[in-house]
Amino acid sequence: MQKPKPIVLKLGGSAITKKNKSFTLNKRTIKRLAEEVARADVDSLVIVHGGGSFGHPTAKKYRIDEGYEVSSQMIGFSKTHQAMKTLNKHVMDSLINQNIPAVEIQPSSIVITKSGRIDIMEQRPLMKLLELGFTPVLYGDAVLDYKRGFAILSGDQLVSQIAMRLNAGRIIMGVDVDGLYTADPRTNRSSQLIQHIAVQQLKGLQDKIMRSNVTDVTGGMLGKVLELIPALEHGINVTIVNALKPYYVYRALKEEEVVGTFIEKG
Amino acid sequence: MQKPKPIVLKLGGSAITKKNKSFTLNKRTIKRLAEEVARADVDSLVIVHGGGSFGHPTAKKYRIDEGYEVSSQMIGFSKTHQAMKTLNKHVMDSLINQNIPAVEIQPSSIVITKSGRIDIMEQRPLMKLLELGFTPVLYGDAVLDYKRGFAILSGDQLVSQIAMRLNAGRIIMGVDVDGLYTADPRTNRSSQLIQHIAVQQLKGLQDKIMRSNVTDVTGGMLGKVLELIPALEHGINVTIVNALKPYYVYRALKEEEVVGTFIEKG
Repeated sequence: MQKPKPIVLKLGGSAITKKNKSFTLNKRTIKRLAEEVARADVDSLVIVHGGGSFGHPTAKKYRIDEGYEVSSQMIGFSKTHQAMKTLNKHVMDSLINQNIPAVEIQPSSIVITKSGRIDIMEQRPLMKLLELGFTPVLYGDAVLDYKRGFAILSGDQLVSQIAMRLNAGRIIMGVDVDGLYTADPRTNRSSQLIQHIAVQQLKGLQDKIMRSNVTDVTGGMLGKVLELIPALEHGINVTIVNALKPYYVYRALKEEEVVGTFIEKG
Repeated sequence: MQKPKPIVLKLGGSAITKKNKSFTLNKRTIKRLAEEVARADVDSLVIVHGGGSFGHPTAKKYRIDEGYEVSSQMIGFSKTHQAMKTLNKHVMDSLINQNIPAVEIQPSSIVITKSGRIDIMEQRPLMKLLELGFTPVLYGDAVLDYKRGFAILSGDQLVSQIAMRLNAGRIIMGVDVDGLYTADPRTNRSSQLIQHIAVQQLKGLQDKIMRSNVTDVTGGMLGKVLELIPALEHGINVTIVNALKPYYVYRALKEEEVVGTFIEKG
């Protein structure tokens, strides 16, 4: 029997935290998403979650993403990771409560970036967890950087890299909107949800893609999509769904029909 | 100027947790030790802490150290790591509260053992943290094992390996007793604290060394000392002090006179 290709599931920071309220969990959503993951019971799964209102305020305050310039930023680096760890602990507890054998992999202990891009990444424990049937869970994190000293590693960059390194079958992006729009649906009433798109078209549409206005040191929806292009070009399909809507992530995991944006190499 | 060699400080699980009460922190001790570390302000420091009453009950219940035999152990592996993470979070918070730029390194994300012994270990992020002036913090953890599937990686094995890999200057073991005794002081009234010993003598005395009777899946005091022999033979001195006694760890960090056991290659 052929081994199933892993699915990489992103749980967006703006879905699992209250994005306008610092350090506040979206507890009900986290619990529901853990239930959906347990019920979908896919063979091979890696979860990556974002930072939302846990990661961003501290990272921004200490300007971690701009690199290491003054020694007072060091404690900020420590605090940024601690905030992410607090969020991650809640996510892990919820998954384990659903009897999912989830194991954290701390990104800052396995990755060093160079100018913000993943340069080295120890992936053997991650691969072995997956091989044994565990569900590894990673997250956006403050990491060390060979050029800048520090950097913010976004969950989205991790998703793309991990999907390629593990030769994943597909990527599911659980976000706080229905998918990609032709324009910002909040300001442009004629904007439409893009239900299906190929990478080439996507590149052409870049400027038209809805830009999220939320404070996000890792970039908004445009950043997310751009990050996924290497994985898409590697042949890994991406489904973007609204994780705030019950059973959208579930249906995406089960490959059932669901409202969202489906992106493929084309 | 020559770079200072790092000190590796172990904070024993039986010092930072209430060893006879599952999942109970020794909060005041953790806070005091964080103050002592901050006050000592050594140039280059790595901290490793044990699991005490956080790590052991779950690890024992699911027989994690015996390896992966039945799938029901998987959730036990997840829970063992979560318990260690909970303890680690308290330790980190206390260090950061003292303005120490401490950053966790999750052992299970960088180590795979073979029959319980460290086989691979990603050490670049750890080394880079140290180089930038951070205080990396590791801990005993449930890890993956190439032979057995799972294993328990003791804080003591980590201390010895890290000290050698980082070419540390010395090791300080903060435990819950005054040091090594010629016999168990609780059962043998003629037992004496060994204040100074060389590795060769230590090997001869092995059978006479006090054995701790506490449930400890990683072995008691004898296991600790045996784990340190490779580092000692590598020329790294070891000072064992009572972390429950105020300012013992501080004095050891400052190389001031302190009651304890000093072990050297000899």
